[in-house]
Parts: sequence; structure tokens; C-alpha cells
Amino acid sequence: MAVENAGTRPLAVAQIADLLDGRWADRRRHTRELCTDPDLVNVPGWSMADHREHVLAGLQKLADAGEVQRAFPTALGGADDPGGNIAGFEELIVADPSLQIKAGVQWGLFGSAVLHLGTEHNHRAFLPDIMSLAVPGAFAMTETGHGSDVASIATTATYDPATQEFEIHTPYRAAWKDYLGNAAQHGTAAVVFAQLVTHGVNHGVHAFYVPIRDAAAARTESGAFPMMPGITSQDDGHKGGLNGIDNGRLAFDHVRVPRTHLLDRYGSVAEDGEYTSPIASPGRRFFTMLSTLVQGRVSLDGASVVVAKMALAIAWRYAEERRQFTGADTETETVLADYGTHRRRLLPLIARTYAAQFLHNDLLERFHGVFDGEHDTDEDRQDLETLAAAAKPLSTWLALETLQTSREACGGQGFLSENRLVGLRADMDVYATFEGDNTVLLQLVGKRLLTDYGRSTAKMDVAGQARWVAERAGDMALHRTPLRRASQSIRDWGSRARSAEELRDPAMQRELLEDRVETMVEEIALRLKPSLKGSPAERAAAFDADQAELVEAARAHGELLQWESFTAAIDGIRDADTRKVVVWLRDLFALTTIEKNLAWYLINGRLSAQRARTVTSYVERLLTRLRPHGLDLVEAFGYGPEHLRAEIATGVEAQRQAEAMAHVRRQRASGRAPVNEKHLAATKDGSTGPKVAQPV
Amino acid sequence: MAVENAGTRPLAVAQIADLLDGRWADRRRHTRELCTDPDLVNVPGWSMADHREHVLAGLQKLADAGEVQRAFPTALGGADDPGGNIAGFEELIVADPSLQIKAGVQWGLFGSAVLHLGTEHNHRAFLPDIMSLAVPGAFAMTETGHGSDVASIATTATYDPATQEFEIHTPYRAAWKDYLGNAAQHGTAAVVFAQLVTHGVNHGVHAFYVPIRDAAAARTESGAFPMMPGITSQDDGHKGGLNGIDNGRLAFDHVRVPRTHLLDRYGSVAEDGEYTSPIASPGRRFFTMLSTLVQGRVSLDGASVVVAKMALAIAWRYAEERRQFTGADTETETVLADYGTHRRRLLPLIARTYAAQFLHNDLLERFHGVFDGEHDTDEDRQDLETLAAAAKPLSTWLALETLQTSREACGGQGFLSENRLVGLRADMDVYATFEGDNTVLLQLVGKRLLTDYGRSTAKMDVAGQARWVAERAGDMALHRTPLRRASQSIRDWGSRARSAEELRDPAMQRELLEDRVETMVEEIALRLKPSLKGSPAERAAAFDADQAELVEAARAHGELLQWESFTAAIDGIRDADTRKVVVWLRDLFALTTIEKNLAWYLINGRLSAQRARTVTSYVERLLTRLRPHGLDLVEAFGYGPEHLRAEIATGVEAQRQAEAMAHVRRQRASGRAPVNEKHLAATKDGSTGPKVAQPV
Repeated sequence: MAVENAGTRPLAVAQIADLLDGRWADRRRHTRELCTDPDLVNVPGWSMADHREHVLAGLQKLADAGEVQRAFPTALGGADDPGGNIAGFEELIVADPSLQIKAGVQWGLFGSAVLHLGTEHNHRAFLPDIMSLAVPGAFAMTETGHGSDVASIATTATYDPATQEFEIHTPYRAAWKDYLGNAAQHGTAAVVFAQLVTHGVNHGVHAFYVPIRDAAAARTESGAFPMMPGITSQDDGHKGGLNGIDNGRLAFDHVRVPRTHLLDRYGSVAEDGEYTSPIASPGRRFFTMLSTLVQGRVSLDGASVVVAKMALAIAWRYAEERRQFTGADTETETVLADYGTHRRRLLPLIARTYAAQFLHNDLLERFHGVFDGEHDTDEDRQDLETLAAAAKPLSTWLALETLQTSREACGGQGFLSENRLVGLRADMDVYATFEGDNTVLLQLVGKRLLTDYGRSTAKMDVAGQARWVAERAGDMALHRTPLRRASQSIRDWGSRARSAEELRDPAMQRELLEDRVETMVEEIALRLKPSLKGSPAERAAAFDADQAELVEAARAHGELLQWESFTAAIDGIRDADTRKVVVWLRDLFALTTIEKNLAWYLINGRLSAQRARTVTSYVERLLTRLRPHGLDLVEAFGYGPEHLRAEIATGVEAQRQAEAMAHVRRQRASGRAPVNEKHLAATKDGSTGPKVAQPV
Repeated sequence: MAVENAGTRPLAVAQIADLLDGRWADRRRHTRELCTDPDLVNVPGWSMADHREHVLAGLQKLADAGEVQRAFPTALGGADDPGGNIAGFEELIVADPSLQIKAGVQWGLFGSAVLHLGTEHNHRAFLPDIMSLAVPGAFAMTETGHGSDVASIATTATYDPATQEFEIHTPYRAAWKDYLGNAAQHGTAAVVFAQLVTHGVNHGVHAFYVPIRDAAAARTESGAFPMMPGITSQDDGHKGGLNGIDNGRLAFDHVRVPRTHLLDRYGSVAEDGEYTSPIASPGRRFFTMLSTLVQGRVSLDGASVVVAKMALAIAWRYAEERRQFTGADTETETVLADYGTHRRRLLPLIARTYAAQFLHNDLLERFHGVFDGEHDTDEDRQDLETLAAAAKPLSTWLALETLQTSREACGGQGFLSENRLVGLRADMDVYATFEGDNTVLLQLVGKRLLTDYGRSTAKMDVAGQARWVAERAGDMALHRTPLRRASQSIRDWGSRARSAEELRDPAMQRELLEDRVETMVEEIALRLKPSLKGSPAERAAAFDADQAELVEAARAHGELLQWESFTAAIDGIRDADTRKVVVWLRDLFALTTIEKNLAWYLINGRLSAQRARTVTSYVERLLTRLRPHGLDLVEAFGYGPEHLRAEIATGVEAQRQAEAMAHVRRQRASGRAPVNEKHLAATKDGSTGPKVAQPV
């Protein structure tokens, strides 16, 4: 099999690395190097108090060096570079996820809200101190009683024309702002989201700049500045991770701020209390405001992929060095990477991580287009939001799965903090539910898929529907073909090899992935249809019954997007042998994704039982082909020992193995090695046979 | 649908609780109450040093109260009660997993090794101080370079007849003992596993009692006693969890211990150096010695189920109280438990946790039988080991999955340490790889399945094989019948309801689960057959190619055992309505297990596409039926707020919700509530329609 032997030469790692690091590769690499600074990196086992102070000092260092303000206006010392800013920001996680998220709170949420929800006068008043970290601030959106449901927050900001002030008020305990970075200790201001009420009308959620601590006063015993009057703060205390961030709660008891503290890009209140907004519909206004904050999701997506890459770099390097149980030659032990189960655990995750990185690169381009103003229509923003909502759940869960699998693949070593995986796992945990709960985000994507489906078919008559179906088929004629042919000739196929060939065809892969999304959405839409004429309760029940399936459809949609980005990226590799290997990796991504959902393909007649078997056998073949390239594929991520800071990824295990083997050889050469009782017995009774190592 | 409405009455929770807590329910409940003692429970955010000292003090308190010595001989102050001892030990995790595992190190590993590998004189010399904790000790088996491969450890114990001493020696860095609880700080002795060499012959791995620190000397700066000459200790430092335990490394440089420090039940050395053993075969001797240490796996299995129960009690209670997004009536918001996705996430885990508990109860009975001496043949021990090797991976992974799903299901609240889930998750992480890496254990089970298969068929002639097949069919005639019937009549079925009825039949469930294990094992055996005549390298390659599949077969075997234990346990419920609900839960376990492997059933022609669809729709139906009983099902676990110590499982969320609703009602009644701009707009332009809540 020439094809399998072809690809054992070293890959063109630099070409892959350029592709992975994408348009803002320089920013990424620059920040990666910053992240070796001891002032920025965390040390496992710190107390919460020490960690918090270290991270605050690190933030100040980044601010002083001008490393974190590129998204802000050039006029104010920024660079008007939204994409490059995010690319660099994502890499900060290499130093310490707490550092990254605290930077995200300060400049990505608190500062971004002022930038995107405020206007010129807000910018002049507030941004300089935010950018320099003179004013650390909280982003006070989430309430204890309302996590993902921002529209329902209960904090109010009631305008008082007599004093030209807003009165910010927390009506009950469930409306306390919660989980806010900078709120427990360091923050001296906050952007507070509240229902704007003026002249007895609630105009919906708006954002207000509110000083929360008195930075002019002496610090209290706790080291924090005293709270401003009417504001209560509570420490969220110890968390599952990210303990370098002082998350806390805030409550407001009739707290007054000047009228000008309303961030007034999407709604303003005149001195007399009259409300005006450039967006007439309250619903559209709300979503427009929220859409400006999409960068949180975009950057969590990218940061999660960074962590997945780091975990795989650690686990695969260890797998190439660590030996366990004697192999076929009964002399040296086998390296972990040569075990079938080990390949099965790690290589598909490498493939998914590539896919997630390429999708992220496309997402970041789109983000830059919108915020750069180049592609900033309503539709662009909606597409960006949907794409971010699809990408972030997949990558955050990927990071968690990758960290856990890597940690288990490193055994006891994986559990030691010195090898980094457990600390990253603890920190990344919350990425699955913050900036939008993953399940809720996928529901959002699912609803969008249903809406798009509905739009295409809603008001058609029968002839129109037929036309639509025909057009749809026309659009996809190219990649529909293989499946049509496949399903027709499925009974004729005798050999697995032939089938595997078909599965290598990208058009076939796309067809299988795409068909699943479309069919699932169509089925849900058809099931929901009868209930649309029912009562609200009936509609809710029908919708609830399909929730799990809708989430699954959204996930499938995200995987299809990953596949498309992966496939498009491959063209960027000039070296033919390298491209071939990366194509295998893309195939592995496609095939393991199809394998995961094999039951669906079988039930829905998209794959015959025989073809389905070839999916798994082709996956196994790809794993064998890719194994020799594992190290190159993780080297391309660009994280060396200085970034990984994991003892087992430094070559120490290989040294230990070499020392052990040298000892055994010396002892054997000396003739003083003890005889094994087993061999003694074998000589006595004449039975032989190689030793079989037994796991315990 | 009478059957669905029947079961909304409260369940006979006490009957379920008795069944779950099993034969040693009293010990379990007694220990659970102990675990509310502030001297035993951990507090999140402690420094490693403080946590270690707290746990050591807690251990002393347990020892002084005689709570942890029941496994030891009555003559020495124990109770000769292996089963009851483990049942109580498992519940210690409620207080603090570090406390449990450090107790496990002291009495379950260090003490147990002396008990089971030593003889009378060893017991008299060492056990009293171990039982009282006068001598905290390490269990020095694992080496840095050999985790699961104990047979290959490189530490030697060479007998010197001149001084009648063993010389314990560590030849190189990879042979350092590693990850040992009590080694970094508190331990003053260790049971050290080493290759016993005498008269130039290596008799394989044996255990030695070795003093490691000088408890008579003054403590060093670090607070620990000084090391004995020739012994080096290194702290493993901060870990992903279990930071109340002082894990560390030990190295021995020609350290001498008296001949009598060999734990000599399975091998002894006379003064002149002659080695004798009651077990002639070195291989069998090794496995017999290791088999005495099975209690580690047994107890980790049980402790993991305890944690899964705690996590589900927390998450489900919160799901019953927490409201998010307005429901169909647009007035009150919907509780999480009423969302389809939420039920899908949590209820199948409740079912799996029941299954894991019932299998554990059977495992513990079997363990007691062996160590009580009642059922202690070689075969009993092998069966016990295989059962433990099958149960422990499933339950430890279940605990991790349950903790993570529960944590995500509680959103940001789940990430706060005050709600317990993240701390338990961090501690439980290592359970997946210690006391036998889960993947390696499943391979062990897989090998046993292959061996059993081979034994039944190996030396048969054709007639014999036919007879065997007939017998096998006869054995299973009872539960084979439904499937045979099903596959014959599969094309005749029109209605899904009819198919769902069939899936409720336990005989059908067993058939589907069992058939999968048997078929997979058979296929692997047949694939391996040709390679058996090949070279060692060919055999190794063939075996490696089937590793992933073999692990999957072992998992399927474990799930079948869980199903059988669950099914057998149900008969113990006297209340008919309660039994009906628990049967639904068992059905949910069976059906979600089948659903997970649906592709296999389809590919192998066990289920038609139509029947496969009914699996998922029947699962959905079961979830709806079980939803009203969720709280009762987790109440039966027996963990109240005093055990869970999770703020969100105390009813505080319900209070917050009630307060919020009361506020809204008051405001509305007062007539001072602001008008919503949206409704204002609606009145103006005449458009209406209910508000649709949108997730963000």
C-alpha cells in the first residue's frame, strides 16, 4: 500500500502553522512569547488572595505595555483593530486563564460596552481610564435569578427629571448582579444593565456607567476601596477555577448616577425625560445592543481552541516517550502512541481541534469585517452571532473533553498540577456556561435554522414549494451526486476498499454532513407545524418535545461549518505530501463525526449496514496512517515547553526511559543480573513461551 | 393514557432507600451522619498545608473512635467485617474525598497489605500501630516509570544471609515510587513492593515493611520527621484534587530491613536465604498477591456512586426550583426540570446511577464472601477481580460525567465552590486512573471474556461445537425468544406503540444487551484466530488492532451486569406503584444504553430502522413519565442538605423566586408598575401576539 508508506517523511510544519495561526499570526505569536513572562504566568497552589493580586499586577503590566487596547479608537491610543486584538487576547490564556478572563472583563466587556453602547461623550469620559486600568470595572449584566435570560433582568434605572439622574435599584435578592469579575474587590466602576424607566414607561435593558467604589478614599481592611453609598458587594468566594479573578455580586439601593452615565448609542433620555432611540422596535433594539457584545463568544471560542492545542501538545509528546508493558519483541516496552486505544483517544481530537481552529479563523475574519465596518449590515451581524453561537459551544466542550482525555492518557502524571492539564481543566470548566450557556446557544442556532427553513417555505403555494425544492436540488447538484449514486448502487458493492474510496471523496463527506442537518431541521419543522395553530401551551409543549433534537441539529450544523472551514483551509498548504496528510486528518474529522452519528445515517437510509462498517474500518486505517505524523501535527500548534510549562512535555520521560534501559543493558553485560525464577522453572519442566506482561 | 397518570403520587422513598443502601445500610447511614462533623469536612479554598493537617487530624479522630478498623481481626480490636468496613468507608467521601482516600491509604492499602500479605508475626508487629494511626504509612507500589504494570517494577529487595537483612534499592529515577499518599510528609513507614532476590534468583514482586521516617527524632522545619538513612522523599506538590493528601515519591539507596519485615504469606526466605512459597508458579503467586488488594477497586466503585448520587441530588433539587424564561402562560417562568433538554441531561444519569449502585451492592456482597472466607476459591477470587475491573471504570466515569453535567445544568451556580460540584469533580478526576487505569482494567475484562470464550470452544471438534451452540441456545431459550419473534415479524409491525411495548419486555432488553457482548467477543476471537499462529509481532499487531473494540465489549459487559443487578433489585420493592416507577427507570437505563449503541444494533441486523426509531421515542416517553418522580428518586439516595453542603440544594433558590414573584405581584397591585414600551407600541399599531422569550 504505497499510499500508507508515502507519508512518513517530516511534514512542512511551518506551512501548517501559518495556516492554523491565520491572518493575525504575528499578533498570536507575539502574545505567545509575552506569555512566558513570570509576571503573567500562574503557579499552581497559590491562595486565592495571592492569585488575585498577581493577576491584577499582570493586567497592569499588559496595560502599561499597550498590549490590550488594540480594539479601541486610534484617537484614544488604540489601533482600531478588532480582529488583531482578539487574536492576541486569545493567546493570553497560555499564561493564565485567570489573566485572560480578567483582561476580558476589563477591556472585552466593561470597556467594550462603553465603546459599543456609548457615544463620543461616553468614550471621552470613561475610556481613557478603562484602557489604562486606572479604573478597573465590572460588567454587571447577569443576575442571580437570570443567567442566560438577559431580557428578564429586574434591576431598574428610573429617570428623575428633577435631578437629571437615573436611580439604579435592585428590587429583590434574585436581581443581584452575580458572578461579576472585578466586583468582589478590584472594581471601582461598573457598566450596569438595567430596565430603563422614564415617564412611567419601561424601554427595556440599557447600560449605565456606575462608580461602585470610592478610589479616593483609604482602602479598607480587605484591601479594597470602600463601597459607594447604597451599593453592596459580596464575594462569590472560591470557584472551580479562575481563582485569580475576584468574582462577586453587586446590589444597588436607590443609587443615583448623572443622566450622562447612560451609554446612549441605542437609546437616550433628554433632560425632560423623553426617550428616543435610533431603533424603533424595542425587540430589535435589544438584540442590536447585545449583538455588539458578541466578541466575548468569539474570543472564548478561540481561547478554547488554544487550550485544546496545548493539551494535545502535552499528551502527544508524552505518548511518544512513555513506555508501558513489553511489546512483541519482549525487550523494550511499547510507547503509548503505538497502542491502538491511545491513537483512538487522541488523534480524532487532534482532527477536531484543527477543524475548530479553522472555523474560528473564519469566525474571526467575519467578526473583524463587522466591527471594522466593512461588512456591517444587520444580516452580517445576525450571521456573525449565529456563527459564534454555533462555534463557541463546540470548542468549549472540545477543550474540556480534550483536557480530560489528555489528562487520563497521561495517567497519574496528568493529575499533577506541574503537568498543567488539571489546572487548565478547572479554569476552562466555566467556559461551557458563561457568555451564554452552551445548550441555550445551540437552541438559538437551532431556532435560526428553523427560521431560515421557514422563510424559504412559509408563504409558498404548492407550485412554489416544488420550485423551491428543485432550486435547492440544483444548488447542491454537485455534491448531491455521489450520494445519489451511492444509494443506487449500494447493493452492488462487494469490497470494503471501494466503499472506503468513496468515503474519501469530499463531496460525499459534505453530502453526508449537510444532509443530516437539513433533514433534521426539516423533520422538526414538519413536526412543529400542526402545533402552530394550537394554544400557547400546546405550542410550548411541542417545541419542548423537540428541544433535544433541535440542539442536536444545531451541533450538526456547527460540525458541518467546521468541516467546510477545514476543507477550504487545506488549499493553503503548498507542500503536496503535507497536504496529503492534512487531508487524511480532515477525513478523520469527517469520518469520526459521521461515525458518532452512524445510527442516524442507518435509520434514515443514508448508509447501508455494509457501508457503515467501512466507516469504522476506514477510521482505523486513517489512525494508522496518521500515527507517524502525530508529533508534527501538534508541533504545528506552535507551543513549546516554555509555553506549555508541563514537566512531562520537556523530554524528561525520554531521559528517564533512556537511563532505565542503559541500566538494564549494563547489568546484563556485567553478568550479575539475577535469574528470573520463571525462567528457572521453565528450564526445569521444559515449558517455554514468551513472557506476557499483564496489566494490573 | 392511564399508565402515565397513575404514577404522580409520592413514591415509597424509604423502600427504595433501603434497597439502594443494601446489606450494610446501617453502616452507610451511621458514617453519613459522622460526615457532618466539622472536624472531618473540608472547606473550599484551603491552602494545601492547612488541608493536609486538617485531614490528618480527622483521620486520628476516626481512628480514636474505632470507625475505620472493622476489616481487621477481632483479636486486634477489629471486627472481621470486610463488607461492612467498605460500606462505611465509601461514605466517608461525603465529608471530604481527601479524608476518604487518606483513610484508604492508611487502612485500605498500607494496613491491608500487612493484613493480607503478612502472617501472624507481621500482624502482631505492625497492625496495632497501623490501626491506631500511631504509624501513618505509605503503600509504595507504583513507580514513576510503571503505573499499571506492577510486574515490571524495578525496585529490588536483595537478601543478605550474612546480616539476615533485605537491602531495598532503587536503581534509577524511573523506579522511584510515586504518587504515594503519606509519603511526602506524614508517613513514618511504608509497605514497599520490590523484586525479591535471593541466591541470585529473582522471585518476583513481594512486599516489605520499611520504616521511612524517624518518629523518635525531632521534626524538621517542614513539620515532618526526618527521613531514615538512605531514603529520599519528594513532594508531588499541588494536584488536580485531593490536596488534603500528601502524595510524594520515595527512593531507596541500599536501605536495609530485617528479614522479618518481608510480608511472608505468599513467599518467605529462611535465615540461610532459601526461598519457599505456598504457590509454586511465580505467575499465579503474583496474581494471588495482587488479588488480595482488590478492595481498593471495590471501594472506589462504591465511593464513585456515592458522589454521583450527591451530584444528582444537588442538580435535580436546583432544577425543581430554578426558573428561566417565561413559559406558555407568559406569567411565571418555567422550572428547569420542565425543559426537555434538562430532563434528557439528568434523568438518564439518575437511571445509570441506580444501575451502578445495584451492581456495586452485588460486588460488595461477593467481596465480603471472598474475604469472609465463605466463598474463597481461586475461581471466586478471579470472578471478584473481573467484576471489580468491570464495575470501577463504569462508575468512576459515571461520577465524572454526572458531576460535569450537573455542574453545567446549574450554570454559574455550579461553578461556585459553595455548591460543591466543582470540588468533587476535581477530587474524583484521578479515580479514573488510580487503582488501575480504567482503560487498562477494561482490557483486562475483555481478555477474560476472550479467555472464557476460548475455553468454551478451544478444543472442540465440529460435533462438540455444534453441541455447545445448542446448549448455549438452550440456556438462553427463555430470553432469546422475544428477539427471534421480533426479527421474524419485524416487517409486520405497523404501530410504534406495539414496538415500544416490546422494548419494555425485560427479556427483550436482556437479549439486546447480552447479544451485543457475545457477538462482539465472538467476532474479535474469530479475527484474532489466524494471527495465533503468527510471530509475536504479528500477534501483537492483531491484538492491538482490536483493542478499541475489546474495550467496548468489556464496557458492554459491564452495562449488562448493571442491568442484571438493577433488574434483580426491583423485586425488593413491595409498593406496587413505586415498583412501577423504578421499572420505568430500569427501562430508561436499558433503552438509553441501547440508544447509545444503536448503530451497532442496526449494522448487525438486531434492530430494524423502524424499531430503532421507537427506541428514542420510547426514551422520550419514559422521561416524561419519570419527571414528576425526579425528586423522590434522588431523595431516596439519603443525602440531605447537611451532607450535600451545597447552598443551592437548601431551598434558597425557591425562596429567592418566591420573593421575586411576591414583589412583582405587589407592584402590579399597587398600579405603579411601569408600562412596557413593547405593549405601548402594540396598542398603537394594533398588533398583538404573546411575548416570545429569547435566550441570549
